[in-house]
Amino acid sequence: MILPSYLRDGWWTPDTEDGAADVLDASTGELITRVSTAGLDLGGALEHARTAGQRSLGELTFHQRALLLKQLAQALTERKDELYALSAQAGATRSDAWIDVDGGIGALFTYGSKGRRELPNAQVVLDGPAESLSKDGSFLGRHVYTRLPGVAVQINAFNFPVWGMLEKFGPSFLAGMPTLVKPATPTALIAEAAVRIMVDSGLLPAGSLQLVSGSVPDLFDHLRLGDLVAFTGSASTAERLKAHDAVQTGGVRFTSETDSINASVLGPDAVTGTPEFDAYVKGLVVELTAKSGQKCTAIRRAIVPAPLVDDVVAAVRDRIASRVVVGDPRAEGVTMGPLASRTQREEVLRQVARLVAAGGELVLGGLDQPTVTHADGTTGVAPEGAFVAPLLLRFADAWTPEAHTVEAFGPVASVLAYEDPAEAVELVARGGGSLVTSVATHDPAFARTFVLGSAAYNGRILVLDRDDARTSTGHGSPMPHLVHGGPGRAGGGEELGGIRAVLNHMQRTALQGSPDQLTAITGVWHPGAAASAEGPHPFRKSLATLRIGDQVKSGPRRVSLDDIEEFATFTGDTFYAHMDEEAAAANPFFPGRVAHGYLLVSWAAGLFVDPEPGPVLANYGLEDLRFLTPVVPGDSIRVALTAKQITPRETDDYGEVRWDARILNQRDELVATYDVLTLVAK
Amino acid sequence: MILPSYLRDGWWTPDTEDGAADVLDASTGELITRVSTAGLDLGGALEHARTAGQRSLGELTFHQRALLLKQLAQALTERKDELYALSAQAGATRSDAWIDVDGGIGALFTYGSKGRRELPNAQVVLDGPAESLSKDGSFLGRHVYTRLPGVAVQINAFNFPVWGMLEKFGPSFLAGMPTLVKPATPTALIAEAAVRIMVDSGLLPAGSLQLVSGSVPDLFDHLRLGDLVAFTGSASTAERLKAHDAVQTGGVRFTSETDSINASVLGPDAVTGTPEFDAYVKGLVVELTAKSGQKCTAIRRAIVPAPLVDDVVAAVRDRIASRVVVGDPRAEGVTMGPLASRTQREEVLRQVARLVAAGGELVLGGLDQPTVTHADGTTGVAPEGAFVAPLLLRFADAWTPEAHTVEAFGPVASVLAYEDPAEAVELVARGGGSLVTSVATHDPAFARTFVLGSAAYNGRILVLDRDDARTSTGHGSPMPHLVHGGPGRAGGGEELGGIRAVLNHMQRTALQGSPDQLTAITGVWHPGAAASAEGPHPFRKSLATLRIGDQVKSGPRRVSLDDIEEFATFTGDTFYAHMDEEAAAANPFFPGRVAHGYLLVSWAAGLFVDPEPGPVLANYGLEDLRFLTPVVPGDSIRVALTAKQITPRETDDYGEVRWDARILNQRDELVATYDVLTLVAK
Repeated sequence: MILPSYLRDGWWTPDTEDGAADVLDASTGELITRVSTAGLDLGGALEHARTAGQRSLGELTFHQRALLLKQLAQALTERKDELYALSAQAGATRSDAWIDVDGGIGALFTYGSKGRRELPNAQVVLDGPAESLSKDGSFLGRHVYTRLPGVAVQINAFNFPVWGMLEKFGPSFLAGMPTLVKPATPTALIAEAAVRIMVDSGLLPAGSLQLVSGSVPDLFDHLRLGDLVAFTGSASTAERLKAHDAVQTGGVRFTSETDSINASVLGPDAVTGTPEFDAYVKGLVVELTAKSGQKCTAIRRAIVPAPLVDDVVAAVRDRIASRVVVGDPRAEGVTMGPLASRTQREEVLRQVARLVAAGGELVLGGLDQPTVTHADGTTGVAPEGAFVAPLLLRFADAWTPEAHTVEAFGPVASVLAYEDPAEAVELVARGGGSLVTSVATHDPAFARTFVLGSAAYNGRILVLDRDDARTSTGHGSPMPHLVHGGPGRAGGGEELGGIRAVLNHMQRTALQGSPDQLTAITGVWHPGAAASAEGPHPFRKSLATLRIGDQVKSGPRRVSLDDIEEFATFTGDTFYAHMDEEAAAANPFFPGRVAHGYLLVSWAAGLFVDPEPGPVLANYGLEDLRFLTPVVPGDSIRVALTAKQITPRETDDYGEVRWDARILNQRDELVATYDVLTLVAK
Repeated sequence: MILPSYLRDGWWTPDTEDGAADVLDASTGELITRVSTAGLDLGGALEHARTAGQRSLGELTFHQRALLLKQLAQALTERKDELYALSAQAGATRSDAWIDVDGGIGALFTYGSKGRRELPNAQVVLDGPAESLSKDGSFLGRHVYTRLPGVAVQINAFNFPVWGMLEKFGPSFLAGMPTLVKPATPTALIAEAAVRIMVDSGLLPAGSLQLVSGSVPDLFDHLRLGDLVAFTGSASTAERLKAHDAVQTGGVRFTSETDSINASVLGPDAVTGTPEFDAYVKGLVVELTAKSGQKCTAIRRAIVPAPLVDDVVAAVRDRIASRVVVGDPRAEGVTMGPLASRTQREEVLRQVARLVAAGGELVLGGLDQPTVTHADGTTGVAPEGAFVAPLLLRFADAWTPEAHTVEAFGPVASVLAYEDPAEAVELVARGGGSLVTSVATHDPAFARTFVLGSAAYNGRILVLDRDDARTSTGHGSPMPHLVHGGPGRAGGGEELGGIRAVLNHMQRTALQGSPDQLTAITGVWHPGAAASAEGPHPFRKSLATLRIGDQVKSGPRRVSLDDIEEFATFTGDTFYAHMDEEAAAANPFFPGRVAHGYLLVSWAAGLFVDPEPGPVLANYGLEDLRFLTPVVPGDSIRVALTAKQITPRETDDYGEVRWDARILNQRDELVATYDVLTLVAK
């Protein structure tokens, strides 16, 4: 009964059970499965990713990869009940499993969507505008991101076998990097099931995903420049791993997200009876009990105004007494399961003992085996299970170092009192860098002071008040849209954050060259590059025939004072710069009455448009419009419109075309520049 | 004669000369100065930066800091002759000194300009748009950058005492981080002179810049979370430094830029006689001789089509024979000086010997003391000087490992032959990560293949051809606009790159909260936050009275078919979606004839404008316009315009105001959203 690995596009199991590690049910201690990597060809697996995986992903564009992510998320959704059932064996309640399973699937959906909305349908990402490096425009600079040429290795924690895998897999897959996943042993079974569903879907390109069920002590010896390791787990393990030569001198990227001593601060205004007080207490109890406190983002430090400490402790105690039932997650009514393993239980109790020794007073829960609900509904202690009751400690001295440095990775938090806002900021910083801090306040001035003082020590800050308490996604929930990670103790890395995480799998390179070369390399037209006004009007070309650089240049159109007045009358825009010669001339930017900017842009459309029905379906927007030279009566304008970027959609019969628009006057001065956004049929 | 340090806003010199290190003239070996840190209170200096430096910089906005950078650059420009004179003692010719001194001043000017053009006049930077995290808009996410709370420590290389200091100082100062500079001993004298000019200018805020002239072996013991180290130098030193606990576990950011084995590739099309061939050879000679080859970005590997190797070697030989005169930079006619020290000379010759032992054939220059021009114009050998002649090696086997891994940090390059484009890409990658690779080609297809294959191994790629050969800033010149750094062997860091380098001195944090809270914290109005339409029209308010959230809401205006026809006639925009009911209805996005988007935007201006002369001076642009719901005849539109961001200028009597514009129809559907950009008087 060895749990299979998925390697080189096939399932693999060792020939022997010698040396395999047991995985036990968290509630009952029964043997569930065993894991082993005896005889595994890790080097071969990594090389398969670098060859077959890079090749197959390299044949796809961002949009194609994003669409696959959406379809993988759908495949997982259809079979998620299988994952829930396995999660219960690891101690997860249904709502714990929801965080892991649906959270992970949600991350894939987000990347499936963002990849198509926010990335080009191409293989490189441009970063920032072109920089002009010569006066005549013949030499430009531009930043591009290209994918790393190696393999993205995940080393995951036991607490989120699905989410932890998918939140990393989504961005690396989208970037075009193949993945090798190394889950933690206690929950490797759930990761294996999720990989199996993805494999069964038939959607995975060759070599794009591999899974090692078991330990890989020599992993780093096989890594090299172009590879990336995304580690989640304890700070001490991260420290040991990144000391390897592959990272220190070999150029392997190492990013880590380690559990941190996160804080939640109650604002001075959030006194008992306010919606903020209630939201604060509710958040504290959720973070104490969800996943039995086994979340890197859980609240470890409740930082509370001194006069409110008693109220907070009492309110937490009440809420837990009335709502929390500890037991086997398969039993009806249980709201908090055991820890993932008895080893974890022992480790948590050891850290709690350190906190107590440092002065922490237990004001809720105890260290003995708690009475729990068994799967059959009976209650009693469960010595084979990994149960710990919710524990709240209170420190008389908020500056006790252990309160800010010792982590008990379970249902454990410490209450610390502060006297004034500045002290709250300093106490948060004592955590040495955190994944997240939350603050409950309805006072915008306090929120601003607190957040700007604390931001540099946190990867995420949640401001909780009456306006968002109901809709907030909560202190402990990283969102795929927002970066997850934090400085110092939190690992110093960044994951998620939408497309930011995709870019973390790519190399940013500064390109320098002529407009023609930058156009050829990036696939995006750069001003100064060759353009073609030959053949039919570009509005007559579908995506199949339209090319970057296709251009229409209009003839001139003269602007008269009558035109300006007619436009003013029609639009109601009688701003003095258009209507009052004397006042306009007194304006520092205008020689006298000038044409409306919107008149120029509207006329430009009249000059470049080809009006008959054709492949151009709609103008859906406009970007980066700048008015550079005023137009006075008697001036003539003309416009050049050039196809700049073409983005066919994967699932529609049209796509986006971005056009570079430049309006010039009779002296060839730039009057206005902007991008016109259109939808064009395939 | 101990070189002073600048600490805690005053000059400091040790009480003793015991243990001081000598600095010698690179050409003559004469003693120039001595450096020592005996008795230096490094911990006190760092704490001064973290307290006084953070405080004084924290009182300034980005624009105020940027303006100071411009003024510092002006102060340096006025006294740059002093720096030229000192540079000559370190072996730099006038044009070498120009690269260092004017290059450094140029970087300050660029940050002085970009800081005011590309950053808000505030203290935090927003990253990306707001993310909607709840359906009703009551819970948003937004990324902000805030400065790191510590000190930015520079450890610089000897080759660019001025540029190396200023290219790091500009971004850290702009970010609001105080700096402590530790220059390399051989050129500490030049760095000291540059700091002295900046101090004399009286422009430096307290604690914002400190200089340690001499070694600081216990530096890392004094660093902690919130501090940052920017190291430039050898890969082996970088490796040793970053292994320190302060970096590995203490959360100190460490970024390194190490010399790398950079390549320059001659394209298959760039045969003898082409402008690309000539540009390639010229670049190779420049990089071999400028700063006597002591540049992290210099070309170490000339990767050339096999049939062109002889031609390249001959052309380099000819060009050096006719143009390069080695000698004391103070002598007339000298174009290449000595290395910075005899220690460097010995080190370079040792590495050349390794290359020769590995199969490199010397095809230009020799290892003996070259004949050089002395300061008095006579010629002969100079045993006390650090002279090395330009050396070119040729490898029969391009895959010789040493050719890709051994760096001789002087006027030394190796010529390697390739057979086909794929081999050129692979040879470049063999460098294990480089700061820069250049490629001379006029073939856009080759350029694209080469660049996309090589980008992940390079921080910068220059494409050289006939169109940019004259205006190109060259292979070896990092530009402040573009990132400087590279993966793997090149250190894995990023410097410069415009505002990117400023952000590298800040922490990115994901904020979550209600629109009101995000508005309060960021100073930028978020949709859904409170807005005020009380009091006078916002166009009647100067920057002194206008507040974020000030709003004008217009009444409705009905759009008729006549209006659409009148607009079409006036503008010439007779696109079928506006003019032909049947064709418009056949379009997938429109129910029938619809109003022009530009009509809506023009009318919106008429609806929100207050026309009389007043503080609003001009509409200079528009951003992020999206048309969301089509408007058909009979619909009514209205507009809400809300002050979103206010950016007063430091040196003008006006500033930018960004307005959030939303057009709604009679069913309260969003018709269009965009930002209106205006200039408003103070």
